[in-house]
Amino acid sequence: MAGRLTPEREAELHGAVLDLLREVGYEALTMDAVAARTRSSKATLYRQWGSKAELVAKALRCTQPVSVAEIDTGSIRGDFAVMIQASDDDQMAKDTALIRGLAHAVHESPELHQALRDLLVDPEITGLQAMLRRAVDRGEIAPDCPALAFVPHMLIGAFISLPLIEDRPVDRSFLKAFTDAVVFPALGV
Amino acid sequence: MAGRLTPEREAELHGAVLDLLREVGYEALTMDAVAARTRSSKATLYRQWGSKAELVAKALRCTQPVSVAEIDTGSIRGDFAVMIQASDDDQMAKDTALIRGLAHAVHESPELHQALRDLLVDPEITGLQAMLRRAVDRGEIAPDCPALAFVPHMLIGAFISLPLIEDRPVDRSFLKAFTDAVVFPALGV
Repeated sequence: MAGRLTPEREAELHGAVLDLLREVGYEALTMDAVAARTRSSKATLYRQWGSKAELVAKALRCTQPVSVAEIDTGSIRGDFAVMIQASDDDQMAKDTALIRGLAHAVHESPELHQALRDLLVDPEITGLQAMLRRAVDRGEIAPDCPALAFVPHMLIGAFISLPLIEDRPVDRSFLKAFTDAVVFPALGV
Repeated sequence: MAGRLTPEREAELHGAVLDLLREVGYEALTMDAVAARTRSSKATLYRQWGSKAELVAKALRCTQPVSVAEIDTGSIRGDFAVMIQASDDDQMAKDTALIRGLAHAVHESPELHQALRDLLVDPEITGLQAMLRRAVDRGEIAPDCPALAFVPHMLIGAFISLPLIEDRPVDRSFLKAFTDAVVFPALGV
């Protein structure tokens, strides 16, 4: 189905969805508004994305500069360096505001919750686990290191707690400092 | 001013506020409803708490079984053990739902954001920093340990990320496993 739109057109549609999301929020976002803004038919939108929840989750996925699953430098320090280097400070600041706005919608809409989990959270956690497994196979991390189970909690927790604690969005220098101070020592790297 | 109500009466009022908060949410909560539910006058409520935001923040503070600032066992492992042991699994599950519901309200109301920061978050972080400083003074943690700056991020991050990642609220056994696997190794304890 994805073949029906060019990548450029798909990116344009995703951008319009994110703009609308910032303007009116998830609850007030309608497929009619997306269709009008992007000069496309609602039939096209539903054929391509199935539902509003899926459309929003896929649009958010497009803001990710790189998927963890694509990173494999040959060392765990190298993998984290690429992951952090690929992040865009301006984009993370915009994402923080967007995600904060979505927190309520996720609570109200089980469908959105599921779509974000299936399309955004789970694939990244799976990619992260594969990255860690390779590090274990290379002997960089002990196979029974108890912190292995908590790497998603550390990273997602850092993302969400910094704005709450220090009232500022995450940036590359924070991610680097947190990884060096917490993640690597916990993993014994 | 706190002397004007007995501790029992204050606890009763705080309980009623939390019940209302769970029922209708922050936006729809009114001082009129709190006054009616607790058979008190609005004048009393405003004299005692100043504002809806402050009333909600103080009611939430009362759900905390123990303040970090009160814990001092003589070792960092002992302090964390007391902090975790004092937590109540049922209460944490109820708090998770409550805090999730408040996430949107915090975003909409700078006054609530400020009250939660002043009355809940900052005092706990200050208490945590004092606890860590004592551990440094006793020689349990190196004074230049870079993870010292990130302990609030680790703990608050674990609290918020677990429900997102695993769809379950935090409980004592998770807190103990996370502390042993992440917090202590990062601190070199």
